[in-house]
Amino acid sequence: MVDVGEKPTTAREAIARGRITLSKLALAQVRSGAVKKGDPLQAARLAGIMGAKQTSLLIPLCHPLNLSGIDVELMPTPRGYDIEARVRTTAQTGVEMEALTAVAVAALTVYDMVKAVDKRMTIGPIRLMKKTGGKSGTFVR
Amino acid sequence: MVDVGEKPTTAREAIARGRITLSKLALAQVRSGAVKKGDPLQAARLAGIMGAKQTSLLIPLCHPLNLSGIDVELMPTPRGYDIEARVRTTAQTGVEMEALTAVAVAALTVYDMVKAVDKRMTIGPIRLMKKTGGKSGTFVR
Amino acid sequence: MVDVGEKPTTAREAIARGRITLSKLALAQVRSGAVKKGDPLQAARLAGIMGAKQTSLLIPLCHPLNLSGIDVELMPTPRGYDIEARVRTTAQTGVEMEALTAVAVAALTVYDMVKAVDKRMTIGPIRLMKKTGGKSGTFVR
Amino acid sequence: MVDVGEKPTTAREAIARGRITLSKLALAQVRSGAVKKGDPLQAARLAGIMGAKQTSLLIPLCHPLNLSGIDVELMPTPRGYDIEARVRTTAQTGVEMEALTAVAVAALTVYDMVKAVDKRMTIGPIRLMKKTGGKSGTFVR
Amino acid sequence: MVDVGEKPTTAREAIARGRITLSKLALAQVRSGAVKKGDPLQAARLAGIMGAKQTSLLIPLCHPLNLSGIDVELMPTPRGYDIEARVRTTAQTGVEMEALTAVAVAALTVYDMVKAVDKRMTIGPIRLMKKTGGKSGTFVR
Amino acid sequence: MVDVGEKPTTAREAIARGRITLSKLALAQVRSGAVKKGDPLQAARLAGIMGAKQTSLLIPLCHPLNLSGIDVELMPTPRGYDIEARVRTTAQTGVEMEALTAVAVAALTVYDMVKAVDKRMTIGPIRLMKKTGGKSGTFVR
Repeated sequence: MVDVGEKPTTAREAIARGRITLSKLALAQVRSGAVKKGDPLQAARLAGIMGAKQTSLLIPLCHPLNLSGIDVELMPTPRGYDIEARVRTTAQTGVEMEALTAVAVAALTVYDMVKAVDKRMTIGPIRLMKKTGGKSGTFVR
Repeated sequence: MVDVGEKPTTAREAIARGRITLSKLALAQVRSGAVKKGDPLQAARLAGIMGAKQTSLLIPLCHPLNLSGIDVELMPTPRGYDIEARVRTTAQTGVEMEALTAVAVAALTVYDMVKAVDKRMTIGPIRLMKKTGGKSGTFVR
Repeated sequence: MVDVGEKPTTAREAIARGRITLSKLALAQVRSGAVKKGDPLQAARLAGIMGAKQTSLLIPLCHPLNLSGIDVELMPTPRGYDIEARVRTTAQTGVEMEALTAVAVAALTVYDMVKAVDKRMTIGPIRLMKKTGGKSGTFVR
Repeated sequence: MVDVGEKPTTAREAIARGRITLSKLALAQVRSGAVKKGDPLQAARLAGIMGAKQTSLLIPLCHPLNLSGIDVELMPTPRGYDIEARVRTTAQTGVEMEALTAVAVAALTVYDMVKAVDKRMTIGPIRLMKKTGGKSGTFVR
Repeated sequence: MVDVGEKPTTAREAIARGRITLSKLALAQVRSGAVKKGDPLQAARLAGIMGAKQTSLLIPLCHPLNLSGIDVELMPTPRGYDIEARVRTTAQTGVEMEALTAVAVAALTVYDMVKAVDKRMTIGPIRLMKKTGGKSGTFVR
Repeated sequence: MVDVGEKPTTAREAIARGRITLSKLALAQVRSGAVKKGDPLQAARLAGIMGAKQTSLLIPLCHPLNLSGIDVELMPTPRGYDIEARVRTTAQTGVEMEALTAVAVAALTVYDMVKAVDKRMTIGPIRLMKKTGGKSGTFVR
């Protein structure tokens, strides 16, 4: 977790999750470190974090926000990867769009790194898992 | 199609498609024009086009490209919308990432516009449908 | 108004206004929905909102700010459109540049959508109408 | 003129012009070099050039382009400054939006630098003066 | 100093410094105002300020922040220029990366403006000089 | 090398190199994989590549370019890392600024990842090593 250490009493957090499904061949290449462009998981994690920071430049009605923590993780599944993003802010706005954007950009980055061997990858479902803080109360899927 | 009129002999094109699934309530609001923030479909179309242009700023190893045409369309389905993006270039690089990014950003924009009434929307599957031009030949899903 | 719901006691707000003047032919096309590229007013409204968020990337000495509300409206006049932008923040800096930038980008977007039928459109005057909150007190034009 | 030296046979060029009108007090400060934030004309010139490069990120349906030359000049008038931007490209798309955007951003930058002493400045009219190259032939206002 | 006037009790500040070394010929051109592209020092100062604002878009794990003051100065040395950037924020995160980025971008801008006459310029050392406020206490080099 | 495969007869290439010097403690942490924020070298490589793509948004008079290849490598030295960036284009403009920017952003990223244990790191010298193609002929340092 990229964490700046403050302990705000009014923090908001959102967790989003998504999935990318790969062919067996592509998956074998990722897992054996054979992808020519570099490590897709490491690239996806960083791209997801950077993507979260660009959310307000991508989504027309999203507010620019100070974010106090962004975390993106990729977890292996039998047919690909689950991607989870957690985003926190002390601002007075929810951060579900930042979390969803992080997941989407991370998944797109895996696609980009692996597309030379597999053009049939599918991304999704991407969805909000949890949202805490804020006026509308806690949401848990 | 945003089209600048040239007729290149070496054009490349990519078509990607995705889906966003909404609750009945949310879908009714979108279809009756009752979404407070404005028309989600119009916003999604424009955000998708603008998102395609930011692809190289989002995906670490994507090249910055001149794009000669970007089209994003949302088509109603029983439970939400299918989103299709077509991107063309005369550059010597494929544009599948631009098409996939356009679809993802358009879907995220629908989510953002509608999330006040439905936090359970799901995005995906997002996938490449077709790719023409380029060294690796034509790909059709 | 894109509004996140907080009721800050120290909110600052700025309102800017501008104008775009079109030929009769162009105006008729906009009003009859005949513009090939799509609805210029809807595109201008969204582009203005997104432009406000990019102000600090455009204007060298403008501070990056959290914005809590951005609203852009286009109102028909006999010879074109009046464009009004209202921007609010809880930060300790005025937002007149964000409001003026929103108006300018909205006007440029109308120009772009309509330029195939009219290259003689004029943009302006763009000016600040009102500014409230902040050390320098309220300004009303 | 920022010029990279190539002599393309198919260059396109656009020239846009705009105006910013200042109070006598503000104008005196600009002309005597008394503006605290720095030289507004120099800042406006650079911001206009940088703004032209961001056009496709601001205007929804504008194509990202390679630009081969951007020039922004501010010329004193009795009540302020005339701003002229010239933009050139070898790409197969017109650059009038880049020229108009450069003018708008330059004018907004002057406003920002001077607003501490004058909030009544007006920007405009901004308009296209000339466009050469391209399918639609030469346009001169 | 671009200063918005607030007097926060919890301000953080960082000061970074760097250097660019030029050939005698290049230095003479800069000092005599003979650089064709314009004044490198003025351009570097503005580019450094704008670069600081883009830090979170450049450095993967840097948080987007509201900045309350950015100052970039270039001081002549016998063989080039010392560049100093001071950045302040009221946010709960340090701004040393913003100060270092401002110095780097300012130095790169001098290089760009002068490279037609000198390709052997060297940039560096760039380093943090001072950091105040924040949990980790004051750092002075 | 991120390589799109074309073999242009008019390619231009630039190679820049820089250095970051760390304390023994910091260097030990990097080399043992103990840096909390993740792998600085992997992050620096990706950030350098992405930074090269943002060059025209950072350096006022740099042209936006299609880049056909960007490579960033970090090589261990006794006291830190040497960073080398190679950038290629088929456009009619040199890419030394892109290579230098890639090096600077990669070095800044290492600094950011490691600054919790070492604030005394120094960046530089950064310099152009080689430039081929283009009107001005080959430059080798």
